[in-house]
Amino acid sequence: MECKKTAPIGVFDSGVGGLTVVREMIRQLPEENIVYFGDTARVPYGSKSQKTIIRFSEQIIRFLKTKQVKAIVIACNTASALALDAVRDEFDVPVMGVVIPGARAAVEATLNQKVGVVGTEATVQSGMYTKIIHEMNPQIQVIEKACPLFVPLVEEGFKEHVVTQEVIEYYLESLRDTDIDAMILGCTHYPLLRSRIKRYLGDKIQIVNPAYETAMDLKAVLEKQQMAHDGVSGRKSQYEFYVSDAAEKFRRFANTVMPFDVPETNVVNIEGY
Amino acid sequence: MECKKTAPIGVFDSGVGGLTVVREMIRQLPEENIVYFGDTARVPYGSKSQKTIIRFSEQIIRFLKTKQVKAIVIACNTASALALDAVRDEFDVPVMGVVIPGARAAVEATLNQKVGVVGTEATVQSGMYTKIIHEMNPQIQVIEKACPLFVPLVEEGFKEHVVTQEVIEYYLESLRDTDIDAMILGCTHYPLLRSRIKRYLGDKIQIVNPAYETAMDLKAVLEKQQMAHDGVSGRKSQYEFYVSDAAEKFRRFANTVMPFDVPETNVVNIEGY
Repeated sequence: MECKKTAPIGVFDSGVGGLTVVREMIRQLPEENIVYFGDTARVPYGSKSQKTIIRFSEQIIRFLKTKQVKAIVIACNTASALALDAVRDEFDVPVMGVVIPGARAAVEATLNQKVGVVGTEATVQSGMYTKIIHEMNPQIQVIEKACPLFVPLVEEGFKEHVVTQEVIEYYLESLRDTDIDAMILGCTHYPLLRSRIKRYLGDKIQIVNPAYETAMDLKAVLEKQQMAHDGVSGRKSQYEFYVSDAAEKFRRFANTVMPFDVPETNVVNIEGY
Repeated sequence: MECKKTAPIGVFDSGVGGLTVVREMIRQLPEENIVYFGDTARVPYGSKSQKTIIRFSEQIIRFLKTKQVKAIVIACNTASALALDAVRDEFDVPVMGVVIPGARAAVEATLNQKVGVVGTEATVQSGMYTKIIHEMNPQIQVIEKACPLFVPLVEEGFKEHVVTQEVIEYYLESLRDTDIDAMILGCTHYPLLRSRIKRYLGDKIQIVNPAYETAMDLKAVLEKQQMAHDGVSGRKSQYEFYVSDAAEKFRRFANTVMPFDVPETNVVNIEGY
């Protein structure tokens, strides 16, 4: 099993958002090698249908399998919500998403049994966060809200613009006026708006970032299955990045998110997998 | 050649935006049958690379050819700017884009030889509008400006929201402060924001919508090549709509743009072409 322990973990997302999950994995699992795929030719997923998102996810998992990954993390909330059930049993490596870890963190965080969820249109329409939370605790009231403009605002570098503040108010006013005390950032782009969202919602609402819990869960799975990388003193973990389009633009964005210089990024014709 | 005359015209776009071109074609060429393809599984094109946009365009043209189209209109400015040269000679039907007609209209409209162009990031980075305008008149000064948030704002139904007004001001302030007297709406979504843009820019700047000129050009090409539909009294023209994803969402949007009830829309697995 030695080769399995040193094998990389595959992570994928519709584009750059999943890097917030990679960042958390590097923090919590510094010994692990990672192969990342961002589907920049077909981004965004949040407005697309379940059937299409399952097909895209299957293609990407087949690509990641060629990299001999020992486990796969679907870092995209939309793909986790819509495709995880379909792909989990199709492949012979553990596949995990971000929705279950995110839901569990919210269930643990809420004191008054009221949780908010923000995400893409597809994630919210799937109702997957509500379903998973209710499986954990049927008493919890869940209010989901789609915020489709958050992704383009982040991707276009509008994080600090006044327009972003107004869009935050537009989407979140109705949530702020409820008595939720925990809110899941149900899209990997949203942690990049975290401080502004936090400031708007105030201290009474705890913000849950599923990336943190996902990395914890992954660690537990690897340890349980005796697949965790043992680590070798002085060795540097390896990170590889692949995209389906616009590698240079991806690399520029990645460099603003990652704690190190992102190496050369390779373009993959993902439709061929 | 009778079958050619009655054959449909193929029109494609990255998504719903090209419907503004179809609307104009129906107005100016009411006898023609139309087959429309919207690449809703891979929308938007505006942030993607030339290589990818050429591949997508080739797949779509191969699909449209199965519908025995007699001519093809690339209704998407980004695909027109980045892929027209590559695909034009590859297929045995006339293929035209929206950039050349749009550029010509602006050249005719400007009195003080200063033209503005707004479009997606990919269209503006290609510099294609400037290149084409300079081929027509090298004296004209062209100022191009990417407005990447306009597409998601339109797609998310924010046409009337105050945020849209602010984004318009953010992008167009620098253009308004020049002395351009004509501005091309270099993306098929932008005509849906036309009245707000017009109000912000004021009367001194004439807004050019390439859709109108494209339909005129198409009419001229069909007549010159004796391929125009003769029309039969009492006959209704046929319009077919295909997408690569989310047919029902497309149909709902299309119904807000088109002057008739959009019929059932079929999903095509475009990656297979």
